[in-house]
Amino acid sequence: MALIVQKYGGTSVGSIERIEAVAEKVQQYRDRGHRLVVVVSAMSGETDRLLGLARQISERPVPRELDVLLSTGEQVTIALLSMALEKRGVPARSYTGSQVHILTDNVHNKARIREIDARKVRADLEAGRVVVVAGFQGVDEEGNITTLGRGGSDTTAVALAAALGADECQIFTDVDGVYTTDPRVVPEARRLDRITFEEMLEMASLGSKVLQIRAVEFAGKYNVPLRVLSSFEEGEGTLITYEEEEMENPLISGIAFNRDEAQITVLGVPDQPGIAAKLLGPVADANIEIDMIVQNVAPDGKTTDFTFTVNRTDYEKTLEILQDVARALGASEVSGDNRIVKISLVGVGMRSHAGIAATMFRALAEEGINIRMISTSEIKISVVVDEKYLELGVRALHEAFHLDQSGD
Amino acid sequence: MALIVQKYGGTSVGSIERIEAVAEKVQQYRDRGHRLVVVVSAMSGETDRLLGLARQISERPVPRELDVLLSTGEQVTIALLSMALEKRGVPARSYTGSQVHILTDNVHNKARIREIDARKVRADLEAGRVVVVAGFQGVDEEGNITTLGRGGSDTTAVALAAALGADECQIFTDVDGVYTTDPRVVPEARRLDRITFEEMLEMASLGSKVLQIRAVEFAGKYNVPLRVLSSFEEGEGTLITYEEEEMENPLISGIAFNRDEAQITVLGVPDQPGIAAKLLGPVADANIEIDMIVQNVAPDGKTTDFTFTVNRTDYEKTLEILQDVARALGASEVSGDNRIVKISLVGVGMRSHAGIAATMFRALAEEGINIRMISTSEIKISVVVDEKYLELGVRALHEAFHLDQSGD
Repeated sequence: MALIVQKYGGTSVGSIERIEAVAEKVQQYRDRGHRLVVVVSAMSGETDRLLGLARQISERPVPRELDVLLSTGEQVTIALLSMALEKRGVPARSYTGSQVHILTDNVHNKARIREIDARKVRADLEAGRVVVVAGFQGVDEEGNITTLGRGGSDTTAVALAAALGADECQIFTDVDGVYTTDPRVVPEARRLDRITFEEMLEMASLGSKVLQIRAVEFAGKYNVPLRVLSSFEEGEGTLITYEEEEMENPLISGIAFNRDEAQITVLGVPDQPGIAAKLLGPVADANIEIDMIVQNVAPDGKTTDFTFTVNRTDYEKTLEILQDVARALGASEVSGDNRIVKISLVGVGMRSHAGIAATMFRALAEEGINIRMISTSEIKISVVVDEKYLELGVRALHEAFHLDQSGD
Repeated sequence: MALIVQKYGGTSVGSIERIEAVAEKVQQYRDRGHRLVVVVSAMSGETDRLLGLARQISERPVPRELDVLLSTGEQVTIALLSMALEKRGVPARSYTGSQVHILTDNVHNKARIREIDARKVRADLEAGRVVVVAGFQGVDEEGNITTLGRGGSDTTAVALAAALGADECQIFTDVDGVYTTDPRVVPEARRLDRITFEEMLEMASLGSKVLQIRAVEFAGKYNVPLRVLSSFEEGEGTLITYEEEEMENPLISGIAFNRDEAQITVLGVPDQPGIAAKLLGPVADANIEIDMIVQNVAPDGKTTDFTFTVNRTDYEKTLEILQDVARALGASEVSGDNRIVKISLVGVGMRSHAGIAATMFRALAEEGINIRMISTSEIKISVVVDEKYLELGVRALHEAFHLDQSGD
């Protein structure tokens, strides 16, 4: 008998039939004796329909009113799911983000949760009810409706699980777990039984879009065990938890990759304190997110070379900004390439094992793949390669680290 | 410069184009220096769409959740209208029933307003904003979303006007005012410039479905001047206020009629105290609303005859109930007719004028219309006639009282 927070995304509640299927699943869990809080998104297509209405009025609708509009999407789902539960004889009660008091800051369209007053939910659980909560939305201190931004329902679920001290937060989605890599690229990719928060964060930020990164951070921070499972198939999914001491961690958990990268190089920058900030500050000021940064001393010893990556959509703009900055700083050259990709090995096991990088580079070299940039962290090694080598590189690494075989 | 509460119904906000047109109208009023609170319904069709979703799950969805579902309809409209106003440079702010704290009882699907905390609205008005409020909805003491039942947006508008001490409450609809009778029956029917609350109540309850009856009661109780106007055409509409002393009231304001009536007669009921309650109690217990009631002493002096009308849809059920009751009471006969209609003359002027009834009966007699039942009140005379005489009767009365000519 556990307290479980479950979250069902837009596809899982995309029609009346699917809502009925979710109700049935919830009932099964309840029949096993669990207490349940269910967080739902808007029915798939609904958010786009509402956005379409707003855009007919204005290309840039007032953010406050956009939140009032979009938050109706989940409100429809909580009502329908509660009806479906009650029809099955399962006592249920729905709450909007405002009713259950998911207090957020006042940044409309991308608010952050500050606090949840879980008293109402607790009282309902004690009365034997299933509590159905609208994901993605909250309320600011003045009572204005806010939304957490797209995909924010995961965060709602995790925050509720943390506030309630739930035993597990289950994210139901259209995949049945976290894989060693994208199965569309490597058919041998294997579902992981478990993965650590840190690994998941690296996997998520690098493009394995199973979970919202903020939700994983939140879960890690409050130590909420997170499980990703399929709404449509049976299975245990993937459990995301903290590394356990007694556990023999696999060397590598997975291979993430990102196709949306572009690389920019500034050569011959006079090497002096604060030069990185001078160079990259204007880029950050333009709200462009910088991903990998590599700095090398140039052969002459007096200048330095910078290479970094940005999102491909920001490529032109970044180049433009840097032409000016580089000229002002006396750099010799700015160049770039927007046909590159990033491949990353992720694994907490890497901390205690040497030679991972060497194996990685050898595997890529054997396939004739030229590495253009390398960046490492404690549990991740990322390389930038030519776009055309993406699939070849990921497959080579998957094989080299035997990720198709279970480490258990 | 006045404080005006305006209400726009579902047809008036039925599309993005119409919402833009409402925004334009609101802007015009504001440009003339008025302070405005705008109450809106769900876009036409939206409530039915939501009901359709609920009915796919259950023929009798849980009332609490139905309110959560249906209340999204107006929430969409307030957001879109506020966006349209802001786009025009008119500062606006939307509020759900819960946000603006329209406190109701907890009778889901047909809640009644208890209290409105108008502080937020006042603060916004003082800051120069147009306040856009979702009609038809409120919140109970425990924070549950409630709805006032269909058409309840009129009541929201009147209640807000009362709470704010507004100068006028304007109900924009698809007709341009209140008419002497239905223009589809009498082409000469004339729009009334003004009518009293009492007359309007009689007109509304008798089938001139321009305004929600509860809204008129509310407006009368709190003395809120109510104006009915067209969303689509220019014009002054009809003002509904209290009778003014100095005003020369027209004899008759209008002719209402109701096609949905059925008549039931119980003959030979032993005349004893409490007999009416014994006879009609079981009908009321079955939630059947009784309209006109007429009691006559029978020729023998010891028994009495009852005739009353009910809604035509309740006809069979009422007959069934009465067969049993009449037998138990020893009545001699129960009969009925469901092909009858009610026609009513309404006018406060009737109070101080004699001979109205005589004129009415004569006009009907001249057309060969047999009167089956008569019932009078201080400002109304109703007759029941055969269904087939409805149009003929209404036209004859319209002419007899010269309603096509302005009384001013």
